Amino acid sequence: MATGLLSTREFNVSKREKFSEWYNTVIYAADLVDSRYNVQGFLVHKPWATRLIRGLYSLFEPELEKDGHEPVVFPTVIPKENFELEKEHVAGFVPQVFWVTRGGEEEFARPLALRPTSETAFYQMFALWIRSPADLPLKLYQSCSVFRYEHETLPFLRGREFLWIETHDVFATEKEARAQLLIDSAIATRVLTEKLGIPLMAFLRPQWDRFPGGLETVAYDVLMPDGKINQVGSTHILGQNFTKAFGVKWTGGDGKEQFPWSTCFGPGIWRMAGALVSVHGDDKGLILPLPVAPVQVVIVPILKSEEKRKEVLDYCLNLQGHLRTHGLRAKVDDSNKSPGFKYNYWELKGVPLRIEVGEREVAQNKITIVRRDTREKLVAESAHAFKHVEEIGAKILDSLRAKAEAELKERITTSATDKRQVKAALDSKGGFVRVAFCSIAMDGEPCASELQEFTQGGKVRGHLLNKKEKPDASEKCVVCGKKAHEIAYVAKQY
Amino acid sequence: MATGLLSTREFNVSKREKFSEWYNTVIYAADLVDSRYNVQGFLVHKPWATRLIRGLYSLFEPELEKDGHEPVVFPTVIPKENFELEKEHVAGFVPQVFWVTRGGEEEFARPLALRPTSETAFYQMFALWIRSPADLPLKLYQSCSVFRYEHETLPFLRGREFLWIETHDVFATEKEARAQLLIDSAIATRVLTEKLGIPLMAFLRPQWDRFPGGLETVAYDVLMPDGKINQVGSTHILGQNFTKAFGVKWTGGDGKEQFPWSTCFGPGIWRMAGALVSVHGDDKGLILPLPVAPVQVVIVPILKSEEKRKEVLDYCLNLQGHLRTHGLRAKVDDSNKSPGFKYNYWELKGVPLRIEVGEREVAQNKITIVRRDTREKLVAESAHAFKHVEEIGAKILDSLRAKAEAELKERITTSATDKRQVKAALDSKGGFVRVAFCSIAMDGEPCASELQEFTQGGKVRGHLLNKKEKPDASEKCVVCGKKAHEIAYVAKQY
Repeated sequence: MATGLLSTREFNVSKREKFSEWYNTVIYAADLVDSRYNVQGFLVHKPWATRLIRGLYSLFEPELEKDGHEPVVFPTVIPKENFELEKEHVAGFVPQVFWVTRGGEEEFARPLALRPTSETAFYQMFALWIRSPADLPLKLYQSCSVFRYEHETLPFLRGREFLWIETHDVFATEKEARAQLLIDSAIATRVLTEKLGIPLMAFLRPQWDRFPGGLETVAYDVLMPDGKINQVGSTHILGQNFTKAFGVKWTGGDGKEQFPWSTCFGPGIWRMAGALVSVHGDDKGLILPLPVAPVQVVIVPILKSEEKRKEVLDYCLNLQGHLRTHGLRAKVDDSNKSPGFKYNYWELKGVPLRIEVGEREVAQNKITIVRRDTREKLVAESAHAFKHVEEIGAKILDSLRAKAEAELKERITTSATDKRQVKAALDSKGGFVRVAFCSIAMDGEPCASELQEFTQGGKVRGHLLNKKEKPDASEKCVVCGKKAHEIAYVAKQY
Repeated sequence: MATGLLSTREFNVSKREKFSEWYNTVIYAADLVDSRYNVQGFLVHKPWATRLIRGLYSLFEPELEKDGHEPVVFPTVIPKENFELEKEHVAGFVPQVFWVTRGGEEEFARPLALRPTSETAFYQMFALWIRSPADLPLKLYQSCSVFRYEHETLPFLRGREFLWIETHDVFATEKEARAQLLIDSAIATRVLTEKLGIPLMAFLRPQWDRFPGGLETVAYDVLMPDGKINQVGSTHILGQNFTKAFGVKWTGGDGKEQFPWSTCFGPGIWRMAGALVSVHGDDKGLILPLPVAPVQVVIVPILKSEEKRKEVLDYCLNLQGHLRTHGLRAKVDDSNKSPGFKYNYWELKGVPLRIEVGEREVAQNKITIVRRDTREKLVAESAHAFKHVEEIGAKILDSLRAKAEAELKERITTSATDKRQVKAALDSKGGFVRVAFCSIAMDGEPCASELQEFTQGGKVRGHLLNKKEKPDASEKCVVCGKKAHEIAYVAKQY
């Protein structure tokens, strides 16, 4: 773990009082990333972040595969003409595309985009692969990095290269495409909430905020400690826009051309890492839920007398072996630092469970287990170590989730009836403001723009996907005062 | 598996007689890749290839980690000025670099390279991370794709974007760097030979064939069925060239600057996939060793009477569950194709074991196991399915390895004493020609060039890394006839 120790620094910032400073300190202190790479906006992911990200992929990929998705690896580059086939898509993405224009000394006649997203790569192949309804549904996913020429960047939240998954699904019917939206949303919820303890809100985005080239967008919003929103993923119903643009079709019995429907889902692995760091961390550093912790249990030997040294170390190694046999990522820290140094170090890294082993533990066949989140201690039989780790791991996750859910609930304001009250709520505690709103179709855009300007960034996130909420007949839009057709949520975002 | 079935075609080409046609048919027939993507030299990896490649990564990564390497994710782009710091490196790589020159509408003042290899990215960070010998050894690896503007491409063998692993290791001393070379070579041998049944030859390459910017190169050569060589990976001793170029250093007690030594190792995951396809495949398709087969056991129900249909299918599903519980990738093919179609399909895909289940098997609690490589059948107790699969899987691997080793041995010519005989051996059976050679230091280059021209492509691969071979005092170089100092091997390569 030499690299981990290299740049780990003292960490002592209040997350509650100075979230931004806390975030910008903890990601370096816990040695997740290094931002000193000499291309602005591109990050070096150090081993701890790399393993954390692998953990996130390993939660999502099996869920997608259980739902019938198959993995593929597509080229990183996409020719410019592919973008130009779908007009809204090109307008939406091209301003932030990186262009490859030369190979060796040779200037290309047609530039290649570094993929900002891969619809225009996949659909070119779909046109070759899909010849009849028998070829459908076709559900593929790719785990990869994508590239966007952003002007402001923030580690795990906005980057010029970031890691995600993209699914690209094609269906014979609209009905199946709409059903997939609900499946995607259930997967996002299951992974984020059940496995990572992060509550999310799934919104049908307003029409003016949909994916370039798509029909409808559902996005998954996570509340960050500073009250701003981190959109950790989204699903788009693309309708027949992309299949028509790329000629993905067949001829029906009636001689007419048929175009299938399609969807895409982008679990934002990078943004989930940012959410994990932010939502669960505390003033001592990260707190990682067991399912994604690169080290789940750190075992710290407390070496006093030289004569018992080997005995204590062997006991720790046996314990490590026992836990690893059960599939846990356990690690003895036998470096020559003090126990206190090691406690701080692994707390900063967010390891959920620590086991302390001293001469007394060895003599009595015991272990002392310490929870990262509450620092509660439990002395237990060494023989039952695995059972205890599993149980306490589950408790930590439950407790992190409960805390995050309470925080989210506390930060949903439901009492605002005009734009001043929306602004006041956003200014005082951030989070979501639940409001009556005229419309999330295109005719609501003027009100949304006015609200965003008035609140200095409060955006209409849309209406909840999974809960039918409708305003009473008497309720008025918080902006224009006309009849409200929607219960919408307003929030500032990253 | 819709995508798998889409483009699977009839397959019937003799591998022995027409290897090139066989290869260019089987990779599409088995639905590994699609080369119709509209950027030349860039491939779409379909699900079967993606899973196969993941299997290869999953064999290498733990070996690297056991040896103390930690995973990282570095940016895909590298600024041009980084390349220019190491003169030989820039000369070697820049002619085949893809350049990113624009973001949106903005022209960059300094172009960014798509990494052709990442030394010049890693060393920029090493200069920040390494401050004293206490920071060493530093051993990192990255699993990623790299980009080279090649003019001729061939799937899995030469591509404009291909998948590999790159390690970048830094050591305080030359001795450790040299020891790492042997460790890397042992890892390559262990994975290729033990896990995949592919014998390799590790050569210290001649000085004129080393990595641009490195001191010494060891490369891992695999014999392909057409007698040409597939270099599946290499390790380079970079000496202090890169640490000096990038200012990776510290000041010693004597006030002098100290520069560490470094190495890099590139297991060519893509080329290993090409080797797997080629070395083990037969006229029916791929043959994949158990450790990397995306499906290890396919279970084919043989449905006769309608009344027993459910019983047979349930029996298959139970068996699948039993094998999966033991960690095997088992799959019931319950599609509505005929058993014969399914046999051909899964043989083409290279699934090492097939289990056939008909009414008789169900009545007797039996299964019929068929080996992909020999097509031998074994009727066994269903209750012992896992044990049999494990045993037969190991036998298949042993038998694939023995066959490949025999083929390699048969194709090493040891009798050539002049360049005409070298040419005759290469022309008649390809493979390696073991020769006495004047020198693999720079002074041997004129002989190597002459030999390459004379044999139309026979290259001096260097001398064996792990076997001390020296010519007798009387032996003469096969080219110049002067005293030979080396036993070298000559072969044509991909």
